[in-house]
Amino acid sequence: LQSKQPHIGTTIFTVMSKLANDHGALNLSQGFPNFECSPKLIELVEKYLRKGMNQYAPLSGIQPLREIIAQKTSELYGISYHPDLEVTIVSGATEALYAAITAVVQTGDEVILLEPNYDSYEPAVRLNGGIPVYVTLTPENNYQIDWSVVKAKITDKTKLILLNTPHNPTGTVMSKDDLEQLASIVKDTNIFIVSDEVYEHIIFDGHSHWSPIRYPELQKRTFVCGSFGKTFHVTGWKVGYCLAPQQLSEEFRKVHQWLTFSTVTPIQYALAEFLQEPDNYLSISQFYQEKRDKFIACIQGSRFEWIPASGSFFQCVNYSKITDENDLALAQRLTKEIGVASIPVSAFYHQKNDYKTLRFCFAKDDQTLEIAGERLSKL
Amino acid sequence: LQSKQPHIGTTIFTVMSKLANDHGALNLSQGFPNFECSPKLIELVEKYLRKGMNQYAPLSGIQPLREIIAQKTSELYGISYHPDLEVTIVSGATEALYAAITAVVQTGDEVILLEPNYDSYEPAVRLNGGIPVYVTLTPENNYQIDWSVVKAKITDKTKLILLNTPHNPTGTVMSKDDLEQLASIVKDTNIFIVSDEVYEHIIFDGHSHWSPIRYPELQKRTFVCGSFGKTFHVTGWKVGYCLAPQQLSEEFRKVHQWLTFSTVTPIQYALAEFLQEPDNYLSISQFYQEKRDKFIACIQGSRFEWIPASGSFFQCVNYSKITDENDLALAQRLTKEIGVASIPVSAFYHQKNDYKTLRFCFAKDDQTLEIAGERLSKL
Ligand SMILES: CSCCC(=O)C(=O)O
Ligand SMILES: CSCCC(=O)C(=O)O
Repeated sequence: LQSKQPHIGTTIFTVMSKLANDHGALNLSQGFPNFECSPKLIELVEKYLRKGMNQYAPLSGIQPLREIIAQKTSELYGISYHPDLEVTIVSGATEALYAAITAVVQTGDEVILLEPNYDSYEPAVRLNGGIPVYVTLTPENNYQIDWSVVKAKITDKTKLILLNTPHNPTGTVMSKDDLEQLASIVKDTNIFIVSDEVYEHIIFDGHSHWSPIRYPELQKRTFVCGSFGKTFHVTGWKVGYCLAPQQLSEEFRKVHQWLTFSTVTPIQYALAEFLQEPDNYLSISQFYQEKRDKFIACIQGSRFEWIPASGSFFQCVNYSKITDENDLALAQRLTKEIGVASIPVSAFYHQKNDYKTLRFCFAKDDQTLEIAGERLSKL
Repeated sequence: LQSKQPHIGTTIFTVMSKLANDHGALNLSQGFPNFECSPKLIELVEKYLRKGMNQYAPLSGIQPLREIIAQKTSELYGISYHPDLEVTIVSGATEALYAAITAVVQTGDEVILLEPNYDSYEPAVRLNGGIPVYVTLTPENNYQIDWSVVKAKITDKTKLILLNTPHNPTGTVMSKDDLEQLASIVKDTNIFIVSDEVYEHIIFDGHSHWSPIRYPELQKRTFVCGSFGKTFHVTGWKVGYCLAPQQLSEEFRKVHQWLTFSTVTPIQYALAEFLQEPDNYLSISQFYQEKRDKFIACIQGSRFEWIPASGSFFQCVNYSKITDENDLALAQRLTKEIGVASIPVSAFYHQKNDYKTLRFCFAKDDQTLEIAGERLSKL
């Protein structure tokens, strides 16, 4: 069997989580909470399991979930998506990303990726015959995007630009100004946008979520990929969704039906009911801002320097005052020697650029954050 | 947006289920039970939801589920799969099929499909740049496979043969003899096999399940795609798996991690525990054989002629004594006029061959089967 992906190994998340387990380390690497979701949400799943909602959902997802997602999007951003035609439920945002990329990318198409980036984007592009074109962001200017560089990468083969806000791994968020510049760049092109917004409800310091859908010039060409795993502390439930204008949604659904056909039914019903209460998601930013502040307080006495961020549940830190090891070596050593696992940010660059930066996930109970802070402060 | 799949519309299952709903018809079209799963299984999901098993599962699936699947396969067929390296849990058999096909098929590769066949095979092949090559089976000889015809379709571009036993839509099962012939055909080739076995535990009249893995010549090149939705009456839970030798499993996992990454955690734990009791799956053949016999008894007085079958929860019938309408027209008319929905078998042929055959799903409570029988007998 000739491998179609010789360059791709196991994800860094699997590697670091395994290393953390093997060494009994605090796992601040892979992005998942170590605390429970709302008991109410568990009760809702139980309710629908017992009601017998255990057969295939429609391929587009159950009606009440599509409706409440459309309603929430309209209330928060003033943009209307038709629940029957423009909202599709899938088996996690990873599937949403893969399906959107598959719907759009043909062999030889170029896809602009802003790195560092989440590790499923490039393989999804390549498995569909696409060619990744990288714009490299760096910690020196807090990962700000220079849109003139993006513009310079556009060719007549550019099919798609992939965005992610709030951003994993850096925690940066797009601004109104970013979107205005992007809109002026793509205005007279047929370029599509896939926007990964799984941290939509984890935004700090009074920032707002600037999804490209808030600009009509961008909305008409955008697939938004969202999910509930991060918002409701249930990364293992694997329910995500895609918002896109009708024609784009049609193509998206054609792919989705052959990838997984439909998504776990009782959990869809539970989420639909849980979303009826806006506070269930609106309270999450505050919750994680406190976690972020806690984590930063815990490493304040250390020689790590934190890189300002405004969203997601990740904090990147520079360690060049401590050692000149590369970040992969340091992440492994800290896991084994001091019992704190993180992700080396080089893993998010296609050429493994080492900016002496580690990513810590602060979706952990306070005690874990305190112990991690103590251990890190000894370095 | 130029469509990559201009030839593909919505699945026939979605179309017929919607028509059934719109007309309040008994829905014997899409394959799902209208009765509940074991209450024990619901309790197990609740147990693991409450235990907090709600974060990402490992990308290969949780250990206990991989182990019990390997154990069951070894006990039933005497073939060993390494639970850590050769068993992978995915989000339903549809994902298993898509991932296996994606792992193997390169642009221009030929894939042999035996039609009639389940409707996701061809699009999965095409989305990966493959070329479907059809072998057409017909009701005249109960859909038996003429292996000399299969052999004649093999070229040096043939990469994969797709099998399905027990078979949807026809209910036929492969025999030992089928596999021996297949083994002699592929012996000196590099052809892979993807074997869709989601009805593994629904086999009648004393037949056994002849998976290609029971022949070493076939096992070494086979991806088995399985699932729990049909066996445990929970088609909406979307947990499937792939069994394949180590190198094939590695390539499979590389694709799976970018398609969905992982699968719903609490349900994986519940299934792992439920599978500990073999009677939970070994009793299903008897259960469905009674349903099959019941359905046939109910249409005995009609002018439909049933086509003998040995597995799955579908029964195909010939209606040429009743009308010469085409099968799609008849399926729609029966849904609207007499309130019984079925699937026209032409939908499973790439050129929509009409052999005057309808497929009924008998995974329904007895009363539904009786009323459907009464209505069908009036024709
Ligand atoms: C799907 S595993 C990765 C989880 C995650 O989003 C991250 O750690 O970045
Ligand atoms: C995934 S919907 C189709 C269900 C099924 O297996 C069938 O009806 O053939």
